[in-house]
Amino acid sequence: MARKFKSMDGNEAAAYVSYAYTEVAGIYPITPSSPMADHVDQWAAQGRKNIFGTPVKVVEMESEAGAAGTVHGSLGAGALTTTYTASQGLLLMIPNMYKIAGEQLPGVFHVSARCVASHALNIFGDHSDVMACRQTGFAMLAEGNVQEVMDLSPVAHLAAIEGKTPFLNFFDGFRTSHEIQKVAMWDYKDLAEMCDMDAVQAFRDHALNPEHPHTRGSHENGDIFFQNREACNKVYDELPAVVEGYMKKINEKLGTDYGLFNYYGAPDADRVVVCMGSFCDVLEEVIDYLNAHGEKVGLVKVRLFRPFSIKHFVDVLPETVKKIAVMDRTKEPGSIGEPLYQDVVSALYEAGKTGIKVVGGRYGLGSKDTPPASAFAVFEELKKDEPKREFTIGIVDDVTNLSLPEAEDAPNTAAPGTIECKFWGLGGDGTVGANKNSIKIIGDHTDKYVQAYFQYDSKKTGGVTVSHLRFGDSPIRSPYYVTKADFVACHNPSYIVKGFKMVRDVKPGGTFLVNCQWSDEEFAEHMPAVAKRYIANNNVNVYLIDAIDLAAKVGMGKRTNTVLQSAFFALAKVLPAEDALQYMKDAATKSYMKKGQAIVDANHKAIDAGATAFRKFEVPADWATAEDAAPIELSEETKSAIAQQVKNLLEPIDRMDGDSLPVSAFVDCADGQFELGASAYEKRGVAVVVPHWDETKCIQCNQCAYVCPHATIRPFAMTEDEAAAAPEATRTLDAMGPKAKGMKFTMAVSPLDCMGCTNCVKVCPKAPSRWFPPSRRWTSSPFGTTWSRTSPRRRSSSRPTSRAASLSSPTWSSPAPAPAAPRPPMHVW
Amino acid sequence: MARKFKSMDGNEAAAYVSYAYTEVAGIYPITPSSPMADHVDQWAAQGRKNIFGTPVKVVEMESEAGAAGTVHGSLGAGALTTTYTASQGLLLMIPNMYKIAGEQLPGVFHVSARCVASHALNIFGDHSDVMACRQTGFAMLAEGNVQEVMDLSPVAHLAAIEGKTPFLNFFDGFRTSHEIQKVAMWDYKDLAEMCDMDAVQAFRDHALNPEHPHTRGSHENGDIFFQNREACNKVYDELPAVVEGYMKKINEKLGTDYGLFNYYGAPDADRVVVCMGSFCDVLEEVIDYLNAHGEKVGLVKVRLFRPFSIKHFVDVLPETVKKIAVMDRTKEPGSIGEPLYQDVVSALYEAGKTGIKVVGGRYGLGSKDTPPASAFAVFEELKKDEPKREFTIGIVDDVTNLSLPEAEDAPNTAAPGTIECKFWGLGGDGTVGANKNSIKIIGDHTDKYVQAYFQYDSKKTGGVTVSHLRFGDSPIRSPYYVTKADFVACHNPSYIVKGFKMVRDVKPGGTFLVNCQWSDEEFAEHMPAVAKRYIANNNVNVYLIDAIDLAAKVGMGKRTNTVLQSAFFALAKVLPAEDALQYMKDAATKSYMKKGQAIVDANHKAIDAGATAFRKFEVPADWATAEDAAPIELSEETKSAIAQQVKNLLEPIDRMDGDSLPVSAFVDCADGQFELGASAYEKRGVAVVVPHWDETKCIQCNQCAYVCPHATIRPFAMTEDEAAAAPEATRTLDAMGPKAKGMKFTMAVSPLDCMGCTNCVKVCPKAPSRWFPPSRRWTSSPFGTTWSRTSPRRRSSSRPTSRAASLSSPTWSSPAPAPAAPRPPMHVW
Repeated sequence: MARKFKSMDGNEAAAYVSYAYTEVAGIYPITPSSPMADHVDQWAAQGRKNIFGTPVKVVEMESEAGAAGTVHGSLGAGALTTTYTASQGLLLMIPNMYKIAGEQLPGVFHVSARCVASHALNIFGDHSDVMACRQTGFAMLAEGNVQEVMDLSPVAHLAAIEGKTPFLNFFDGFRTSHEIQKVAMWDYKDLAEMCDMDAVQAFRDHALNPEHPHTRGSHENGDIFFQNREACNKVYDELPAVVEGYMKKINEKLGTDYGLFNYYGAPDADRVVVCMGSFCDVLEEVIDYLNAHGEKVGLVKVRLFRPFSIKHFVDVLPETVKKIAVMDRTKEPGSIGEPLYQDVVSALYEAGKTGIKVVGGRYGLGSKDTPPASAFAVFEELKKDEPKREFTIGIVDDVTNLSLPEAEDAPNTAAPGTIECKFWGLGGDGTVGANKNSIKIIGDHTDKYVQAYFQYDSKKTGGVTVSHLRFGDSPIRSPYYVTKADFVACHNPSYIVKGFKMVRDVKPGGTFLVNCQWSDEEFAEHMPAVAKRYIANNNVNVYLIDAIDLAAKVGMGKRTNTVLQSAFFALAKVLPAEDALQYMKDAATKSYMKKGQAIVDANHKAIDAGATAFRKFEVPADWATAEDAAPIELSEETKSAIAQQVKNLLEPIDRMDGDSLPVSAFVDCADGQFELGASAYEKRGVAVVVPHWDETKCIQCNQCAYVCPHATIRPFAMTEDEAAAAPEATRTLDAMGPKAKGMKFTMAVSPLDCMGCTNCVKVCPKAPSRWFPPSRRWTSSPFGTTWSRTSPRRRSSSRPTSRAASLSSPTWSSPAPAPAAPRPPMHVW
Repeated sequence: MARKFKSMDGNEAAAYVSYAYTEVAGIYPITPSSPMADHVDQWAAQGRKNIFGTPVKVVEMESEAGAAGTVHGSLGAGALTTTYTASQGLLLMIPNMYKIAGEQLPGVFHVSARCVASHALNIFGDHSDVMACRQTGFAMLAEGNVQEVMDLSPVAHLAAIEGKTPFLNFFDGFRTSHEIQKVAMWDYKDLAEMCDMDAVQAFRDHALNPEHPHTRGSHENGDIFFQNREACNKVYDELPAVVEGYMKKINEKLGTDYGLFNYYGAPDADRVVVCMGSFCDVLEEVIDYLNAHGEKVGLVKVRLFRPFSIKHFVDVLPETVKKIAVMDRTKEPGSIGEPLYQDVVSALYEAGKTGIKVVGGRYGLGSKDTPPASAFAVFEELKKDEPKREFTIGIVDDVTNLSLPEAEDAPNTAAPGTIECKFWGLGGDGTVGANKNSIKIIGDHTDKYVQAYFQYDSKKTGGVTVSHLRFGDSPIRSPYYVTKADFVACHNPSYIVKGFKMVRDVKPGGTFLVNCQWSDEEFAEHMPAVAKRYIANNNVNVYLIDAIDLAAKVGMGKRTNTVLQSAFFALAKVLPAEDALQYMKDAATKSYMKKGQAIVDANHKAIDAGATAFRKFEVPADWATAEDAAPIELSEETKSAIAQQVKNLLEPIDRMDGDSLPVSAFVDCADGQFELGASAYEKRGVAVVVPHWDETKCIQCNQCAYVCPHATIRPFAMTEDEAAAAPEATRTLDAMGPKAKGMKFTMAVSPLDCMGCTNCVKVCPKAPSRWFPPSRRWTSSPFGTTWSRTSPRRRSSSRPTSRAASLSSPTWSSPAPAPAAPRPPMHVW
C-alpha cells in the first residue's frame, strides 16, 4: 500500500487519525494537546467527513471536567466520541474515566503526555499525567514518534469499539506532539476498511435511546456491586488479542511489525532496557551503535501498557537477558519504584524469571532532554555487578546521588549523513515559523526525511526559541536536542553578549551564522573567550549577517526571519541554491498574496538579499588562546538571599544553561519556594532596536509610556533637586501643565527591558522616535552590569518618592526630597 | 497512661484527633466522610480549642475541588490545615494533592475510604479512592479499626509537620468510619506533648507572608524542573523514620506496638497474608483459630503504605514464609495486579526474596462483607502447590472462576463470650437510633466492650436497615456481619412475608423476636418453610410482639423502636432487667425532656410495656419437615427481558439476598446497563399501617393524593363504562365539580407501595382516614403477586386512558373508551 508523505507533528497525526473515527469531540484546550482539538475543529468547520460520512461535531466545554462529562454522555448516547488533553486537564477527567471504563464505552482520549505540576508548574512532557490514570480501567496505548502516532492511533479507536473498552492513546508531549516529521499518511479508505462496522452498530444499538429506553448509572449496594464489578474481567482478558488483531491488520497493510511489545536489538542480548515513548528511538540508535561495537543489548518497547499482557511481554524478551533497566518518565515519591518498573518486576515474578536483575530509572521529567549519552550511561550501568536499583539520567544528582555519569563526548548515533541544524531565535521573531517553512520545503521537494523540534520557554513571545532541525536520506530517529550541528544560527545578537553556549553545539568544521549589526571588531569584542577558543580549535566557519538593517531596507520592518532563512539555505546547501530561492519565493507568494503584492515583493526581495548578504568572518589566530574575563564577584552588600539565588540559579538559567545545574542547586527550594524580586535582575536586552527619547520633539503626551507593555518607557516628574541628583546623562524638559509648574520632566528608557515591539513609535503623535541599535551601547553581561550597580533590596528602601505621571489620572505628585541613592538603571538610563 | 473510654465510630475518632492539630479545615461533605467534618464544625461552633489554643476555622467550599484549593492555600499561608473526604470527592482533590506534596506542606486528608463509581455508583467502602492518589507524593497511613484510628491518627499530623509531607490518613468507609466501638481516647494534653512545636514554628516562619514575601507556584522549564523535582528525595527517604519515631512515642504512652508494618501470627509461619484496613482484624481472628489448631500462619498489617519501606516490610516477615497472599480492596482492570500486590512483589524482588510464592486477592469491593470464612479460604488456598495467582473472596465468580470456595459452616472465630445480635429495621423507624442508644447504655454502664455496625441501603428512609451488635468481655475484632447471632429481631412483619433470610443467622438455641400484629396462626401462615425447618431443627426460641398497636396505645404513634428496644433488653439479658429499664428511661428523659413531659412519659410507658409485651411462640413439631411452596414460574407472556431481570436479579436483591448472586448473574449487565421499569415490580409492603379510603366521608379534595410522596394514593375520574370495567372491589362516588359531571370518582390506594408516613391522614379535612394493617391482606410474596397478574410492558400499552385528576390544573379529562385489560394493582387495589 503506497501512502502519501507529509510533514506534520504528532498532534496533527493523532488528530488526522482520530477524525476518521470520531463522531463527537468533547474538548477543552490545554498545552500541548490543544493543536489536536484545533485541527479537528478546523476540519469540522471545513466540512471534512469522517469514515461514517459525517463531519465531527465539536463541543467545547468550560473545562476538562466538562469535556469528560460530554464524552461520557455522548458515548452513552451512541456517538463515537473522542477528546484530547494532558496534564491537569487529564486529572480533571479521572472521575469520568472510571465511569466510561465501567460502562464499557469505546471513547478515545488522545493525550500528549505532560508533566503534572508539583513543586512548580511545568507545561512540558513526561508521563506523570497518564500514569495518574492507570487505575481507571482505560486501556493505554503508547507511541514513540510521529510515524507511530499515525500508524497506531487507529488501534486505539478500533480496539475500543470491538473490545468495549475506552483507550487512552498517548505520546510524549512536545517531543512527539510538537516534533515535525515527514510521515507516511493513512488513506481514510484504509481506516474505514479496518473498522468493524458490526461492532459499531452493536454499540449504537446498545446505546441509550428514548425509542427503547434502558437505565444506566444506577447505584448498587454492597450485596451485588463486587459481583457486577467482576463481570467485566473477560473484556480485559480478551483485549490484548483484540489489540493484537488490529496491529496485525495494520502490519499487513504497512509491512510493519507492530506488537503489544516490540523487541529491538541483539537476539542474544544480556542487557535490555524496557521503555515507552520517544526515548525508545534514542535507545535504538544507541543499541545499534553498541551492538555494532560487539556488545549485546536490546530494548523492549511497550505499546499496550494497559492491559499489561505478561505473556506477550515475556515472549519478546530474549532468553539470554541477565539484567533489565526499566525507564519511567514519571516520579512517584514514596513508591518502591515507578509504574513501569513495578509492572516489569511483577511480570517477571509471575513468569518465574526472577533470576533477572531489574533496576529502574527516571528520565525526561518536564521535557528534560534525554540524549544518546544518557542511553549509553544506562547500558554502562547495567554492566556492573550491582547496578543502582534506582537511578536518574539526564541530570546530575549530587544530593541523593541517583544519577548515572554521562560522557560529554558520547558518540554521535544519528543516522549517517544526517544534517543537523540549530537556530537560536526570539519568541515572535519568526524564527520558528521560518524553520517550519524550511523543513516543509525540504520535506516536500526532496526525498529527504526531515525532523524539526522547537524548544520554547514559557515566556512565549519574547522568550528564547531554539529550533532543532535534521534532514537526511534515512529515517530520523533522534528525538533529542541537536548538539552536534552542521549549522548553528544566532538570530539575536544579545545571545552573544549574554554568553549563551551556542558555538559548542557546532561540529568541528561546521558553520556558525550570527545576525548582528556589529563590525568584525565589535563582534570579536562581544564574543566570550570560551566561544572563541572553541571556534579556533574546531575550525568553525563563522559568518556574520546584518539582517536587521537589511530587513528594514527591503521593507520587512523588524521581520528578519526571511533574510535569515535565505542565508541558511545559501550556507547549508541542502538544496541547489536556485531551487531553494524559488521554493522560498513560492511559499512566500502563497502565504502573503492575500495581504497584497507589496508584501509579497518585500519577501521576495528579502529572500534574494539574504542569499548573499552574509560575510565570512576571519577568525583571528589568537582566539585559540583567548582568556576568560574575571568572574563577577558578589560585593558584600549584595550577598543577600536574592543575590545568591540570582547568581547560583537564575543567572545560569538566564543564559540558557539551566541544564548544567545539579540537584544540589535546588535543595533550598525543593518545595518550589523562591526569593522575590528576581525579575529586577533579568536584564535581557533582546530588542535589536529600542526607542530613543527625542526631547526636542516631545510634547509630554506620555502615549509611548502608556502603550509600552514591559514598562520600559517611564515618564518622571522631578523637583529641581531631584533633577540635579539624576544621573549625568539625564536630559530634562520643563514639565508641562499647570500642576507640574516648576518641575522637570524626563522620559526614561530601559533598553535592556525592551522587547522591541515598536508600539511606542506607532503612537507617537509628533514624529517617530529615533531607533537606535542598543547592542553597541552595552559591553558586559546585563546581569553583571545591573547587578553590580545597585541591589534592588536597597533600592526599594530608598527609591525616588516622586511618582511617575499617571495617564489615567493626570495629577502630579507634590515635590519631595531628592533621592538619597542613585536611581536604578531600570528607571533612568 | 490511663485513658477515658467512650463509644464512638471511626469518623468521630479521626475528627477528635484531627481537631487537636488543625487550625483550618477546608471541607465539602461526601459520604461516608461527612460526619468527620460535621463533628469538627460543631466543636468549632462550640468554641472547642485545638492544642494551639484556638478553635478550628472551618471553611465549607462549593466542592471538593474547592476544598482542596482551600487546604493548599491555607497551608501556604502557614495554617495547619485538614480536610475530610472520600471517593469522587477525593478524586477532585488530586490536582491539588500534587501541589501540596510538591510544596512539602503538612496538610492531612482524613479519608473514610470509599468505592469509586464505575459501572455503577456505590457509596460504600473499599480502597479504590485512596489508591487513585498513591502517585501524588502524599504519605499514606492506614488504620484497621476505630481504636487504631484514635491511636494512630496523630502520627499523620505529627509526621506531616516534622516530615514536611502531607498525609492521607485512611480507614475503611462504613466498616470503620461508621462502626461504633468502645475506645480509649487521647487526652489533648498528650497530643500536645507529642507535637514538635519547633517544627510548627519553622513551618509558620517559612509560610507566605506579606511581611517577608516569597514566591511559590512558579513555572520551570525543561532545563531545571527535573533537578528540582529530585531535590525532594531526602524528605521521602527520611519519612519512614519520622513516622516510626512518632509511633514509638505513642507506643510508650499507650503500651502498644505500632510499627510501619505489624506482624501477627506464628513466628514460624509458612503462609502469610499482607493486608491493610479492617480485614486485618478478621484475619487475626482466623489466624488465632488456625494456629490454635496446629497450623502456622500469619499476617503483615501495612500501616505506612507510602512511603513504602522495603526494609521495614522485610524485617517483620518471618524467615520461614513460603507463600504470601496479598489482599487488595480495590480493582484496577488491566493491571498485572492490584497496588499492594505489586508493592509486595517489588519489595521481595528487591530484597532478593523471590523464592516466596506471592498471590493476590481482591475483596470487599463496595463494602462487600468479608467474614472469617473468606479468610479461611485464603489460607486454605495458600496450602496448594499452585494457589491461584489472582483470586477473589466473598463472592462466587462462576465466569472467570477467580473466587475461592468458602465453607458455609466456617468456625465461629469471634472472641469467646461475645454476644451477637442483629436487628432488621426499616430506614426511619428508629431501629438504628435505638441500637446506638442500647450500645451506649451497655458500653457506658458495664465493663463490656461493644461494637455496632449498621448496614444501610441507599434508599435511606424506607430502606432496610440491619443493625449488627456485639458486646463481650474481650475487645471485639470482628469487622463483619453478624451471622451467628444470639438474638435476631425482625422489626417489620413485611420482611417475614418477603422471605428475608433472617432466621438462618440465629445460633442454635438463640432467640428470634418478630414484631407483628399477627396471631400465632397468621404468623405460622406467613413464615416460609425454610425458616420453619431451621427454627425447629435448631431450637430457636421464637417470640412475637405487637409493638405496632402497643406504641399507638401508649401515645408513641408509629414509633415502635422504644418498645422493641425494651423487649430486646428483657430477652437478651445483657444487663439486670431493672437496671436496663432505668438506663433506657434515663436516656429517654435526657433525649426528650426538651420536647415536654408528655413525650418523656410516653417513652417511659413504652419502655415499661416493651419489657413484658412479647409472648413466646410455641414452635409446632411439624415445622421440622415443612414443605416449600412451589416456585413461581414465569408465564409465557412475562418472559420479557425486564421480567427475566426482575426474577434473576432484582427479586433476590429485593429479599436481601443479593449476596448470594454469582458473577454470572451480571454478565449481561457488566456495563451497568439495566432494563427500565423494574421499580413497578418492587412491591415492598413495608408500611405497618396503610390508608383506607372512606368513601362515605370523602369530599374529593384530593389533598391526600397530593401529599402522598410515593404516589400510593391516586384519584381517578372514570366514565360509566370505565367504572363498569373496574375491578370488582372498586368503590366509586359521583364525581364532583361541573366539568366532571356524569363521571365516577374513586380514590385508589396501593398498600404495597405505601411507606406508612401518614401524611395523608394529617391533611384529610374531614376525618382521619381509617388505618388498616395491610399484612393481613396479602399472603404471598408481593413480587409474586404483582408479577403474576400483569406485566408492566403489556400494561403500558393498554393502560386506562382517563388521566388522573391533577390538583395543580383542576380540569378533567374527556371520556374515553373503557380499558381493555384489568387495571394494574398499583392503581386500584
